[in-house]
Amino acid sequence: MARRKKVYEGKAKILYEGPEPGTLIQYFKDDAAASELPPQGGLEGKGVLNNRLSEFFMAGLNSIGVPTHFIRRINMREQLVRMAEILPVEVVVRNFAAGDISQRLGIPEGVALPRPIVEYYYKDDKLGSPLVSEEHIIAFGWANQQDLDDMVALALRVNDFLSGVMMGVGIRLMDFRIEVGRIWEGDFMRLIVADEISPDNCRLWDMRGLEIPGREGQQREPGPLGDVYTELARRLGVLPSNVTHTTKPTLIN
Amino acid sequence: MARRKKVYEGKAKILYEGPEPGTLIQYFKDDAAASELPPQGGLEGKGVLNNRLSEFFMAGLNSIGVPTHFIRRINMREQLVRMAEILPVEVVVRNFAAGDISQRLGIPEGVALPRPIVEYYYKDDKLGSPLVSEEHIIAFGWANQQDLDDMVALALRVNDFLSGVMMGVGIRLMDFRIEVGRIWEGDFMRLIVADEISPDNCRLWDMRGLEIPGREGQQREPGPLGDVYTELARRLGVLPSNVTHTTKPTLIN
Ligand SMILES: Nc1ncnc2c1ncn2[C@@H]1O[C@H](COP(=O)(O)OP(=O)(O)O)[C@@H](O)[C@H]1O
Ligand SMILES: Nc1ncnc2c1ncn2[C@@H]1O[C@H](COP(=O)(O)OP(=O)(O)O)[C@@H](O)[C@H]1O
Ligand SMILES: [Mg+2]
Ligand SMILES: [Mg+2]
Repeated sequence: MARRKKVYEGKAKILYEGPEPGTLIQYFKDDAAASELPPQGGLEGKGVLNNRLSEFFMAGLNSIGVPTHFIRRINMREQLVRMAEILPVEVVVRNFAAGDISQRLGIPEGVALPRPIVEYYYKDDKLGSPLVSEEHIIAFGWANQQDLDDMVALALRVNDFLSGVMMGVGIRLMDFRIEVGRIWEGDFMRLIVADEISPDNCRLWDMRGLEIPGREGQQREPGPLGDVYTELARRLGVLPSNVTHTTKPTLIN
Repeated sequence: MARRKKVYEGKAKILYEGPEPGTLIQYFKDDAAASELPPQGGLEGKGVLNNRLSEFFMAGLNSIGVPTHFIRRINMREQLVRMAEILPVEVVVRNFAAGDISQRLGIPEGVALPRPIVEYYYKDDKLGSPLVSEEHIIAFGWANQQDLDDMVALALRVNDFLSGVMMGVGIRLMDFRIEVGRIWEGDFMRLIVADEISPDNCRLWDMRGLEIPGREGQQREPGPLGDVYTELARRLGVLPSNVTHTTKPTLIN
């Protein structure tokens, strides 16, 4: 794989030119999460796990007919994806209040929202990805009304599927964020789920073991899933055997 | 709970009048599955597990905003549900060919369908629940076009969610069947998911351990999940401790 052309280096991933036109290779780094959503820091082995996790979710979405950029995993840190023209608008779906919406609207963390709430954020790191409304997006031409309708439909299907996956393994999907990209098949354009789906863009709370042992009827408060990359990969059965312990090599000096 | 009025006794469940108007109590029996879909026989403890499993899926659907009849579980074998006017049409969603569609259309079992295929079956045990088309349903007045559109929308959301839950625990949702009922809230009518969601109306294939140990790259054929009630309940963490072993008491004679 020598002399591959680097296309972009972000905070969490490096993009290389793919083997065929219209493809890219995503290399998952261990660097800290890009998003302000989940407050997780850099972690040895994180890239390996996110590569597996994003594969798991994207392949699952493909299999139920939600189009994504995922083609196949190449190795521990890389996957082959379809190149897309990323819309400069990130979609967030919130099932329970937490983080930004709790602060902004004064809703206590953990409160169930009346229905899934879809938000748009303008994708611009320098501006800190500000919340925007449809009005802004259409006025500034970041996407058109049809794009937005398609993005919402995609995001809600991702929400149903991902909520199911998480619930199956005792986790509550509080909220998540996706990026959406445009691809062409001949003259026909469509939107697909791109970037990654991993703990870096999902807020996950642990619902297991809420009952306090010995105290009938009493429950501990639900809260963030600890050791989220490893624990999620473990529960979903995608933990590679050689990153079971994500300990750093000990320095002997 | 003496002198409750029995409303209906079917093959898998007994319905009793609920504590409030518009409610029913579902009692889950151990009898054989009602459906021709999954070929599972009667099983000691099946009712207990289906009560838990249907609770798990219906509560999960409620939580993501897919309306169901489920209110709460009462005990090991009973749950409280909203009384609905069940439409005489069952909806089947198929992701992979198996059973009826394989025979009818000559598609080998296990083949992925081009997209989820929605079918209607006329709910009539004496006729063996025959496949029908929208044309039949509307001509005979079993449901109107709006009902059908709503049923398909419900069924596809259930498919996304349930596919996710199953995928999270290493299971492929091949197909499933739901019943839909009508409820009124004042003058406002809507359709909800009713009856039950359990192995009795889901066809589940095990995707775990497909790699044959020691034979690099070789995979066993996927196939039906064995011991499906217990195994599904175990993987989802809803196995009640006292039905861990569903063995019958030994007769000493
Ligand atoms: N399928 C794709 N086609 C083109 N660009 C993509 C695709 N998927 C993700 N990207 C882009 O690749 C970059 C991923 O790298 P990342 O480290 O997450 O970047 P950032 O720091 O900008 O968030 C993002 O800018 C994302 O929009
Ligand atoms: N919420 C509900 N309100 C009214 N009837 C219901 C509801 N949920 C399920 N039912 C009906 O209760 C019966 C369940 O019992 P079951 O043993 O499955 O019957 P069957 O042998 O007819 O399949 C079914 O006829 C089903 O249509
Ligand atoms: Mg990023
Ligand atoms: Mg039945």
